Amino acid sequence: MSTPSRFKKDKEIIAEYESQVKEIRAQLVEQQKCLEQQTEMRVQLLQDLQDFFRKKAEIETEYSRNLEKLAERFMAKTRSTKDHQQYKKDQNLLSPVNCWYLLLNQVRRESKDHATLSDIYLNNVIMRFMQISEDSTRMFKKSKEIAFQLHEDLMKVLNELYTVMKTYHMYHAESISAESKLKEAEKQEEKQIGRSGDPVFHIRLEERHQRRSSVKKIEKMKEKRQAKYSENKLKSIKARNEYLLTLEATNASVFKYYIHDLSDLIDCCDLGYHASLNRALRTYLSAEYNLETSRHEGLDIIENAVDNLEPRSDKQRFMEMYPAAFCPPMKFEFQSHMGDEVCQVSAQQPVQAELMLRYQQLQSRLATLKIENEEVKKTTEATLQTIQDMVTIEDYDVSECFQHSRSTESVKSTVSETYLSKPSIAKRRANQQETEQFYFMKLREYLEGSNLITKLQAKHDLLQRTLGEGHRAEYMTTRPPNVPPKPQKHRKSRPRSQYNAKLFNGDLETFVKDSGQIIPLIVESCIRFINLYGLQHQGIFRVSGSQVEVNDIKNSFERGENPLADDQSNHDINSVAGVLKLYFRGLENPLFPKERFNDLISCITFHSTVMRT
Amino acid sequence: MSTPSRFKKDKEIIAEYESQVKEIRAQLVEQQKCLEQQTEMRVQLLQDLQDFFRKKAEIETEYSRNLEKLAERFMAKTRSTKDHQQYKKDQNLLSPVNCWYLLLNQVRRESKDHATLSDIYLNNVIMRFMQISEDSTRMFKKSKEIAFQLHEDLMKVLNELYTVMKTYHMYHAESISAESKLKEAEKQEEKQIGRSGDPVFHIRLEERHQRRSSVKKIEKMKEKRQAKYSENKLKSIKARNEYLLTLEATNASVFKYYIHDLSDLIDCCDLGYHASLNRALRTYLSAEYNLETSRHEGLDIIENAVDNLEPRSDKQRFMEMYPAAFCPPMKFEFQSHMGDEVCQVSAQQPVQAELMLRYQQLQSRLATLKIENEEVKKTTEATLQTIQDMVTIEDYDVSECFQHSRSTESVKSTVSETYLSKPSIAKRRANQQETEQFYFMKLREYLEGSNLITKLQAKHDLLQRTLGEGHRAEYMTTRPPNVPPKPQKHRKSRPRSQYNAKLFNGDLETFVKDSGQIIPLIVESCIRFINLYGLQHQGIFRVSGSQVEVNDIKNSFERGENPLADDQSNHDINSVAGVLKLYFRGLENPLFPKERFNDLISCITFHSTVMRT
Repeated sequence: MSTPSRFKKDKEIIAEYESQVKEIRAQLVEQQKCLEQQTEMRVQLLQDLQDFFRKKAEIETEYSRNLEKLAERFMAKTRSTKDHQQYKKDQNLLSPVNCWYLLLNQVRRESKDHATLSDIYLNNVIMRFMQISEDSTRMFKKSKEIAFQLHEDLMKVLNELYTVMKTYHMYHAESISAESKLKEAEKQEEKQIGRSGDPVFHIRLEERHQRRSSVKKIEKMKEKRQAKYSENKLKSIKARNEYLLTLEATNASVFKYYIHDLSDLIDCCDLGYHASLNRALRTYLSAEYNLETSRHEGLDIIENAVDNLEPRSDKQRFMEMYPAAFCPPMKFEFQSHMGDEVCQVSAQQPVQAELMLRYQQLQSRLATLKIENEEVKKTTEATLQTIQDMVTIEDYDVSECFQHSRSTESVKSTVSETYLSKPSIAKRRANQQETEQFYFMKLREYLEGSNLITKLQAKHDLLQRTLGEGHRAEYMTTRPPNVPPKPQKHRKSRPRSQYNAKLFNGDLETFVKDSGQIIPLIVESCIRFINLYGLQHQGIFRVSGSQVEVNDIKNSFERGENPLADDQSNHDINSVAGVLKLYFRGLENPLFPKERFNDLISCITFHSTVMRT
Repeated sequence: MSTPSRFKKDKEIIAEYESQVKEIRAQLVEQQKCLEQQTEMRVQLLQDLQDFFRKKAEIETEYSRNLEKLAERFMAKTRSTKDHQQYKKDQNLLSPVNCWYLLLNQVRRESKDHATLSDIYLNNVIMRFMQISEDSTRMFKKSKEIAFQLHEDLMKVLNELYTVMKTYHMYHAESISAESKLKEAEKQEEKQIGRSGDPVFHIRLEERHQRRSSVKKIEKMKEKRQAKYSENKLKSIKARNEYLLTLEATNASVFKYYIHDLSDLIDCCDLGYHASLNRALRTYLSAEYNLETSRHEGLDIIENAVDNLEPRSDKQRFMEMYPAAFCPPMKFEFQSHMGDEVCQVSAQQPVQAELMLRYQQLQSRLATLKIENEEVKKTTEATLQTIQDMVTIEDYDVSECFQHSRSTESVKSTVSETYLSKPSIAKRRANQQETEQFYFMKLREYLEGSNLITKLQAKHDLLQRTLGEGHRAEYMTTRPPNVPPKPQKHRKSRPRSQYNAKLFNGDLETFVKDSGQIIPLIVESCIRFINLYGLQHQGIFRVSGSQVEVNDIKNSFERGENPLADDQSNHDINSVAGVLKLYFRGLENPLFPKERFNDLISCITFHSTVMRT
């Protein structure tokens, strides 16, 4: 170290030390303040969280109650209507009514779930925040105690430094003064020696004697001062060593405090804070995610019911509801008059030629009519297709309304622009009604034509049988009611339903022809499964299975797989039975022909009437 | 056909016919009634659906408003606090505050989404139901018109049957009467012939003449009656044929109506009903599903923030917030006294032995102290681990509260039983606080010990240097502040942080040693990527990327993969920059050593002060 141009005075050094210590002290106070402030902020945050969740719980409860009221109101209303009671019995609801009930169920489910959410907020989440707040305060107190101890230790170290520094100053000052005294003595001795170096002859004897004793005295003094100086010098060195060692220890302690202990203190305050907060927020998340899952399940059930919105089975149910109105009447029988024993068309000689002529006329008339009517039918079908395209347009996706763009523009503007532009809707509807108008006109024309054809065809066929001719007309539009329909012709006669020959909702005969399977795999597989696991099962074919599972199995079959192939019974037996029922219900030509339906029904009615009386 | 035992009289036949027709008429009326009723039920259902969604829209709007108010209230409160303003500037939020803001954001998002839901109900779903209701009514009217025409046609056919039947009766009756008249003539003729068979001789000539003319007359009459009979017979046969043909045509027409036309009529009523209902309900489902998706996204963001609840980076931020309080103070410098030129520990002859002795004493004292303190440290660590296990217990799953059992039991009972049993919680908390108590006691003991060690170690090390010994003490707990720390030792000195030498939050030197990579792959790969795509990118390293993507990339690197290997820029550049920042931030020994942190900060402060003045 180079010599400083100017020595610092003791006072300056002490002042410097004291200012440094003062600064540290101020920092220690400041640190405590910061930690206290942090804890206060945490407590405040936790208080806010509690208030927030308390308020949110209120909102959820209110929402839940409103939803419950809504569901109850409509449930009550529905329960009182007669159609409800009518349908309730056999659980065989019309598909739109089924959707409606599921909608109400979903609202109930949402109501329950939001009530549960509120309950979890109040009894779990808020309690956790309360506890975290308590914990934070306690941790801060504990860390404050430790901080106090650390600060005291630090102050002790600093005081020690002060002490050893002062000691060093003192001994060094003493060492300097001893040195200067020694130097003074040496100077005196030198002077004496210098004086005694004067020519001797000038000096008197007593003077010489005097001088000698003085030299001795000076020498003695110098020796004394030399000893004193050495002693002080050693003390000073030791004091300086001690000062240097303490300085090193002080700096080490100060930096240990700032780099490690301070960090430990903060860790003490933090102890468990983040982890507990994590758990509290995860409880909230768990509740929200579960609410979502439940909601989603409910929506899936509705979606499934919407998928099953189906006019065909509803029509069936509708007709079954009113058998008296829709049951075909008795045939008009031939009533022979006054013992007329002939009850068939007579083709004896006098009338035969006439009948023959009439038959030929009928045949040619029918041919013309059918060609004409076929044209009308084609137009009708095409128009119907247009209408169906219109009513099945996929215009129900509202995803874009839920885009959370970063911009703060109002949602409304986007909404109105995209999914419901009123002029375009009005135009679409006008167009649709115009098409309808045309469709009904053509349908009427077609029905008129086909009614005439039916009449003439019946006469034609009877004449044909009577005249004993072998061949039959090819494209008959209807047939005598007592002849079972040929499926293909049946399909031709119902042009407005669009079935394709799929596994479900298809035509069994077509399927058998196309696939080469005598018994469709689905029937065989389901029956095998039921045979294995279902025969002892109570309520088999009565209890309905899981709609989701039924659809899964159905879809799997439709993909050409066999989901029931492995022997593990991991499918619900009721669902498997449901698939089989679904398959039979969906057949385009029912297993029990529609033409026989009313006969079968009246059979049952008759039977039960007989049984009752 | 066997001969009936008794002939039905004309009147009976007519009565039977009329009752059959009457029945059909009644059925036709009934069918119209059924269709009308069905339409009424549909209109009613659609009205209910409209009312339902109108009411639900109200509930959603109210819910949305309440949520918005809730968010606004706390946002406003938060905005006014000073910590918000403090943090807002640099967007560098403490992780719990970040969670809190995201929670408020989520409420806002939910509020917006439920408002959108309400909007879609009102402006889309309800409108659709209204239109379906209109359509159903219109379709019913059109089908009624067609039904009217079909009924008229049917009645015409039935009337025709009546006419031809009556004609048949008439002609047959005439035929019978002609036949009986013929028979009567034949009988008379026979009588005449019988009488003429009497012995001739008895008869007078004029009598004979008279008889002959009478026979002729009878013969003539018989011929006339024969002709009449043949004519009537033919007419009767033709009438019967006509009756039979018409009967066939009538039955065909009636059955065509019941089997096909009726079905067509129902189809007419149904036209578009199911499809439109499907679309309306799908709009509802789309809205609900989208709400759910949006909600889920928001929850995922919160979950991510909860994952990032992290005391270490928060501590860092906290200390950065108050640099004045946490900046280590200046070192205490050696102040030489009054020109003392020696500023190092002096180990000259007189004090050397003493220093040597002292050094040895320090060494042995330190060894003992360290062993003792190591024990205390282990206990402290174990206790801390216990506490951490307590506060990280995974007790936040509330799934079972959302089980929708089929039973109608109240949800509350299940809730209180499972997730929050108060006695067990109290016990757990008491246990935790006891452990805490012990931990703090031990921590204090440990800190006291390590403070003493620090002091003695500093002196020991200084003496060691002074005495010029080559070897260094092995397990020093602290080091002189101006010597950069050796990472391993640094790690030892901070026993309560649990870091393992992973890629992230690890020690770079250890990593380099373990992996053999001079530059970690992650650094190389990120910098290469940024070099390729990011140099022109505005806000690089400032704009934060997607937290999800950052985590993905990070996890990928941690699995040892290189997600940025392929040259396609399918990663957001900000996310890649985020990964690099995350990596450097997570290093256990920061790139800029913590010991230099305050120097660097004051450098900047100084620089900017100079620039400003």
